[in-house]
Amino acid sequence: MSNGAETRILRSRAKIVAAAEDCFLHHGFLGTNMDAIAEQAGVSKQTVYAHFGSKEALFIQVVERMTGGAAHEIGEDVEDDLEGIPVRDFLLKVAKDQLSIVLTPRLMRLRRMVIGEVERFPDLGKSLYENGPARSIDRIARAIDHYASTGELRPTEPRAAATHFNWLVMGGPIGSAMLLGDAGIPGKSDLGVHARECVRIFLCAFGSEAVSES
Amino acid sequence: MSNGAETRILRSRAKIVAAAEDCFLHHGFLGTNMDAIAEQAGVSKQTVYAHFGSKEALFIQVVERMTGGAAHEIGEDVEDDLEGIPVRDFLLKVAKDQLSIVLTPRLMRLRRMVIGEVERFPDLGKSLYENGPARSIDRIARAIDHYASTGELRPTEPRAAATHFNWLVMGGPIGSAMLLGDAGIPGKSDLGVHARECVRIFLCAFGSEAVSES
Repeated sequence: MSNGAETRILRSRAKIVAAAEDCFLHHGFLGTNMDAIAEQAGVSKQTVYAHFGSKEALFIQVVERMTGGAAHEIGEDVEDDLEGIPVRDFLLKVAKDQLSIVLTPRLMRLRRMVIGEVERFPDLGKSLYENGPARSIDRIARAIDHYASTGELRPTEPRAAATHFNWLVMGGPIGSAMLLGDAGIPGKSDLGVHARECVRIFLCAFGSEAVSES
Repeated sequence: MSNGAETRILRSRAKIVAAAEDCFLHHGFLGTNMDAIAEQAGVSKQTVYAHFGSKEALFIQVVERMTGGAAHEIGEDVEDDLEGIPVRDFLLKVAKDQLSIVLTPRLMRLRRMVIGEVERFPDLGKSLYENGPARSIDRIARAIDHYASTGELRPTEPRAAATHFNWLVMGGPIGSAMLLGDAGIPGKSDLGVHARECVRIFLCAFGSEAVSES
């Protein structure tokens, strides 16, 4: 295949995925048809089918791309270098990063759509769970393990403690964004107050005495 | 109207609502049509329309009934009599009650469906929020206010503290049930461990010294 042909194919694929993302996020899986996606992408319906085979396959592609993208942005794959970073600073950074990256109208709409389709597409719910909360809990657990070894946290079961921290931070804001729509996404300064208070609560329960009382 | 006629009308209305609940929970709003509901209820489609006017109206009726029913079951309308009940016991009871009543396959399916339809039916999301988390936070806040006055909790902003407790308890289990389906609902003994640990964490952060160290 010539380079020009390959570029054209990739470009039309990208246009289809972008159009599909827009249609699915606004009308849901059942409310979207391939004609609308083709029209918005400016290609024929045949081209959409040639690339993706079915509406299901295209839906999966869109959701996987969005969940993977968000996980990558939070940097959850990266091994944190914690040497010299106080536990309080690390936890506050994690909380703020997660809140600001996850609580966007676009990702909240994706999450609502995946939740609404969990029975039809259980693998997508699983994938969002693994790319979202599970990955973030893994990252926090590794850090808790480290801070237990430096004595900044009391000895504890790292994954259980990390799970509590994750949901203490994310449970409320996500819960309200799920049910109240974009209006349920707290503002930036509220999220800052929330993040600091979650870190305080966590350190009261899991910090060594020196840390939790400072 | 004779009593017999009235009874027949109420009975057919109840059959329609039960059939609609079943259809909506299994196929979602868009995936359900009035023919299927009529067939399952054993009445004509005309009868369904005579009672409810539209699929939207019936959907709203089903969701409102289910959310109101759950709130009633938790007893969130009741003024708690806290005299002589230690704060730890109260919090543990609230946590266990909420977890066992809310985390059922039926209510989790309802919540997924409402979340998936938030853009089409924003009032339903709001209603579930108000009948669910908001009502539970109100109840906990009243109790926190009481326990701050007895000295069992440190002086604190009751609603903010209640919000943290609510999501510390509910955020993780609901988050995983939303994305992982019924398989994401934790087992009874896991929920017991979870409830006790949430109470411990909360009391470390908000309990007066005597309470949090006992």
